[in-house]
Amino acid sequence: MEIKPGPFLEPIHYPADLRKVKEEDLVKVCADLRQYIIDMVSVYGGHFGASLGVVELSVALHYAFNTPYDQLVWDVGHQAYGHKILTGRRERFHTNRTYKGLSGFPKRAESEYDTFGVGHSSTSISAALGMAVASRLKGEMDRQHIAIIGDGAMTAGLAFEGLNHAGVEDSNMIVILNDNCMSIDPNVGALKEYLTDITTSPTYNRFKDDVWKALDRLSKVGQISQDILSKLHDTMKSGLLRQSNMFESLRFRYFGPIDGHDVDHLVKVMKDLKKIPGPKLLHVVTVKGKGFALAEKDQTKWHAPGLFDKVTGEIYKTVSEKPQPPKYQDVFGNTLVELAEQNEKIVGVTPAMPSGSSMNIMMKAMPKRAFDVGIAEQHAVTFSAGMASQGLIPFCNIYSSFMQRAYDQVVHDVALQNLHVVFCMDRAGIAGADGQTHHGMLDIPYMRCVPNMVVSSPMNEEELRNLMYTSTLQKNAGPFSIRYPRGNGVMPDWKQPLKEIEVGKGRKLRDGDELAILTLGPVGNFAATAADKLATEGIHVGHYDIRFVKPLDADLLHEVFGKYKKVITIEDGTIVGGMGSAILEFMAEHNYTAELKMLGMPDVITEHGEPAELYAECGYDVKSIVKTAMEMMHVKVSA
Amino acid sequence: MEIKPGPFLEPIHYPADLRKVKEEDLVKVCADLRQYIIDMVSVYGGHFGASLGVVELSVALHYAFNTPYDQLVWDVGHQAYGHKILTGRRERFHTNRTYKGLSGFPKRAESEYDTFGVGHSSTSISAALGMAVASRLKGEMDRQHIAIIGDGAMTAGLAFEGLNHAGVEDSNMIVILNDNCMSIDPNVGALKEYLTDITTSPTYNRFKDDVWKALDRLSKVGQISQDILSKLHDTMKSGLLRQSNMFESLRFRYFGPIDGHDVDHLVKVMKDLKKIPGPKLLHVVTVKGKGFALAEKDQTKWHAPGLFDKVTGEIYKTVSEKPQPPKYQDVFGNTLVELAEQNEKIVGVTPAMPSGSSMNIMMKAMPKRAFDVGIAEQHAVTFSAGMASQGLIPFCNIYSSFMQRAYDQVVHDVALQNLHVVFCMDRAGIAGADGQTHHGMLDIPYMRCVPNMVVSSPMNEEELRNLMYTSTLQKNAGPFSIRYPRGNGVMPDWKQPLKEIEVGKGRKLRDGDELAILTLGPVGNFAATAADKLATEGIHVGHYDIRFVKPLDADLLHEVFGKYKKVITIEDGTIVGGMGSAILEFMAEHNYTAELKMLGMPDVITEHGEPAELYAECGYDVKSIVKTAMEMMHVKVSA
Repeated sequence: MEIKPGPFLEPIHYPADLRKVKEEDLVKVCADLRQYIIDMVSVYGGHFGASLGVVELSVALHYAFNTPYDQLVWDVGHQAYGHKILTGRRERFHTNRTYKGLSGFPKRAESEYDTFGVGHSSTSISAALGMAVASRLKGEMDRQHIAIIGDGAMTAGLAFEGLNHAGVEDSNMIVILNDNCMSIDPNVGALKEYLTDITTSPTYNRFKDDVWKALDRLSKVGQISQDILSKLHDTMKSGLLRQSNMFESLRFRYFGPIDGHDVDHLVKVMKDLKKIPGPKLLHVVTVKGKGFALAEKDQTKWHAPGLFDKVTGEIYKTVSEKPQPPKYQDVFGNTLVELAEQNEKIVGVTPAMPSGSSMNIMMKAMPKRAFDVGIAEQHAVTFSAGMASQGLIPFCNIYSSFMQRAYDQVVHDVALQNLHVVFCMDRAGIAGADGQTHHGMLDIPYMRCVPNMVVSSPMNEEELRNLMYTSTLQKNAGPFSIRYPRGNGVMPDWKQPLKEIEVGKGRKLRDGDELAILTLGPVGNFAATAADKLATEGIHVGHYDIRFVKPLDADLLHEVFGKYKKVITIEDGTIVGGMGSAILEFMAEHNYTAELKMLGMPDVITEHGEPAELYAECGYDVKSIVKTAMEMMHVKVSA
Repeated sequence: MEIKPGPFLEPIHYPADLRKVKEEDLVKVCADLRQYIIDMVSVYGGHFGASLGVVELSVALHYAFNTPYDQLVWDVGHQAYGHKILTGRRERFHTNRTYKGLSGFPKRAESEYDTFGVGHSSTSISAALGMAVASRLKGEMDRQHIAIIGDGAMTAGLAFEGLNHAGVEDSNMIVILNDNCMSIDPNVGALKEYLTDITTSPTYNRFKDDVWKALDRLSKVGQISQDILSKLHDTMKSGLLRQSNMFESLRFRYFGPIDGHDVDHLVKVMKDLKKIPGPKLLHVVTVKGKGFALAEKDQTKWHAPGLFDKVTGEIYKTVSEKPQPPKYQDVFGNTLVELAEQNEKIVGVTPAMPSGSSMNIMMKAMPKRAFDVGIAEQHAVTFSAGMASQGLIPFCNIYSSFMQRAYDQVVHDVALQNLHVVFCMDRAGIAGADGQTHHGMLDIPYMRCVPNMVVSSPMNEEELRNLMYTSTLQKNAGPFSIRYPRGNGVMPDWKQPLKEIEVGKGRKLRDGDELAILTLGPVGNFAATAADKLATEGIHVGHYDIRFVKPLDADLLHEVFGKYKKVITIEDGTIVGGMGSAILEFMAEHNYTAELKMLGMPDVITEHGEPAELYAECGYDVKSIVKTAMEMMHVKVSA
């Protein structure tokens, strides 16, 4: 299906084309760009609301600034579809988020307009400041550096650290605060309340408007002289302590709030800002999903809705007659409530991912015992540690790749004190279309080296429930991590009674002759299928679900290495220092010498695509497992 | 040498004793406590300036609050000596920071008054909030939770995340901002400027004083009624947008700044604060090193001066006739300047550790190219990534255990983009007296699983210089990590000409018969000595310095496993997933079956002590290496 851009968008392939457009036509360019995004996402999928919200901002930025010489850093980046379409990638945009296609996020390898690769939140201020300082050192004094960051991303500590440094560096640095009161879920915290206050306070706005009008007039009479600017600066500064806001406290010049859907005004303001030296913050108010009524109304649902009918707004769903297995995250969410009903010590913590982690189920059922702390992974963990120090049992749910953001808190605040915090790591392993920034590739090595930490993964929904239950038992008080992947499980009838699993005990699933497969987590299901296929070829492999990378099941491993001379390990994560490596350490300790082959993510950057495509690429889908086993058994592999 | 407490401190063993003291005698208690700290630290060593600065604060907190029911969370914790002396640990205080003795930081296992273990910075607000929320859930509505945090620690993102959440949680939470304009080095950043402004602004202070006086009067007429409090609250709130400060922007009630050395006023204010609901911040101005003139004057030098003469202020130094090997950090600092003089792309970044990392050498020599970004490890790395994206080569120097705080930035902002940032990890391995929170135990596993990352460690000063030089070469553009320990090297004549080392190439140091020792980093010197000793017993071991854990030197390892059937690996870090584990992965890949024994930090929490004591405890000092080798060679080990 070919999707045609409207007449005002059609001739624009690069920002240079955009900058030839007359200012009065920018509104029409915006309308065409918005429609193009709606057309594309409804048919090809992807993130939706965020990009609709910044259509005018994207157009204004590339119009007012001399990109790519001037450098835009999009925070998080799922709002950058408009930017991508305007920067040479419209023809390829239908490949967005598909295997070998465009990334759903800005990426340096993809375009010189993507100045900094993103995916995780709140990096833009620090990165743009690094660029600005580099330009200053290189003497490129006219070069502009613009970080575009949402109010949600602004709550993360990294953003604050960036502001704190930028405020004292004399560099060409503009922070555009895209305030839509939303992350993926509604934004929370004191900063959000504060932004709402300044956005709705007439006194404050009047003062700001006055400053704006003055600047406006000045810019109309031509270049502002340094002298006038300097005086203006002094005036602002003397008023600072009385009329300061938070950003001014951090030595930023604050401008706004202004309407982020008025493209003309945006362009004018941005052109003015270019002339003002030092760190500046422009507060822009936008509506997530702008221009698509349903998306404006239910912003969480339309963050990344999947395919939909752009006229009726119907979101297409695959309907199945048979009951389907649930998502792992929903098993987590429902089981957590079930456990919390039985045990009043249990509380839930999510850093801005209530719907992504299904913590929203507990937030609805037990609002006083479930906490969305905003995009603040570090705080989520240390806050959990504080609660655990008082005898509570926090379930702190953080995506595997985002747990990297709280690593020291896991080590220093939880593990060193042996506190009873349960880390549930969703999106562990291949994450699919979100790609390299979102794969949960590293958690097995980075968790298993931490003293006191239990490292586990369930092979299916029932096991997830049982591990969660087990983690709450007093005898297991201490740091306990459970990793599970994005997406659906394998058990339509998942809600089985809760049973304890002894910590450090794996299980034998199948006996074999010469070769055993050891698996961790849901990849065990690939192995089970592979074992069935191998059996039809007359190759009978043993299969063990080790469940715990730490502590390892010594009895089970002595059985394995006592019986089998060939072993395959399979994990949905890097093979460097991972589960296979833990097995090798066990072998070395006990002088076992089996031939061992490790399957998992290779030590390279795995890009985006469908999980099935990536499992195959990484070499641990069913077919690859069969092939590896046959090779180890010296059986000729048929193509 | 027995050190006697003064007469006012003598009877105080616990806060309950302190609370029996008359208010007018508190000044004398403070004087005695200060003198006791001076007496102890001058003789036994430890952190100095920070604890002197909070003598009055420590006394006031335990006097005004009902500890341990009310909970104090000291941030970082090296300022908690007074707190320790007042909470049952005076008799044991001479064991501070020694093997099996008291920890230099608050530690839960040590005392119920130590509510939360610390060592790393900026955790206190999140932890105290967790405690406050737990108390609320448990219905302990009278319980107070107090985080005491320095202005330096306040610059870290985690502190901001904690404030952002605390501002919207209705809990008994007091943040005491201990503002002394210092971390270990002078504090930097916009927040510091801001705090200076509000501390020195008469207008702002007058307004605050008025509020204070009103509260003061109210507290004198007895219990403040809820009605009056509520009106006061409204008044404050309506004035917020006009008279707000940064903390009020985040929904904290701000009080201060007040003199942190006026113990009477501190007590009064704290008693008042207890009655005010919701999150509160008390801004207290103190002088680091207060009461010891030299320490007030040169606060960095007196942060942890070592032993000194408390009368003359002479800091004792071991004097040696022969030239001594330098500290690794100084080799880093001097070599960085040497490299930067030759290569204008090189810049330096430290998060608040200019003197600890010796980045101050470059900051002095090239102030425009070396950046102290404050306690902000995440920002340090992403800021470096931003500069690297523009072709600069940042040397980002962060202690190994603090690099945990920037793990996602290393992965997401540097490694995924393959940017040319050199990570120099000081304090890698056993850190000594600072103990469990400061050991650089985990960096080998958490770094080597990151794609694109070079993981290296020099065996001596010359190697450190050569690795640094090598890391700057264009052909090695990409993430490059170099780990080295705290303390001194082994080469008095360290300043050798810079030579390139081929990335991924180790070196053979000694040929042997049956057994080879593979080492990474300066522990190679232990192995060399052990090999000498073994030779005198007729056991000739091979010795290889592998230099690079990633990429491994395949040629060298094929040589090792082709020749030797027994191998020992030694690393100054955890054996879980570390260098030994990388060697096992190589063996598995190539079907080698040597007997391999891994020496390194065991998978437990290693406490504090002298490095020599801890190397022995962990089993990789010279003696342990000899013993292990002899056991593997089935030679009887003589006691």
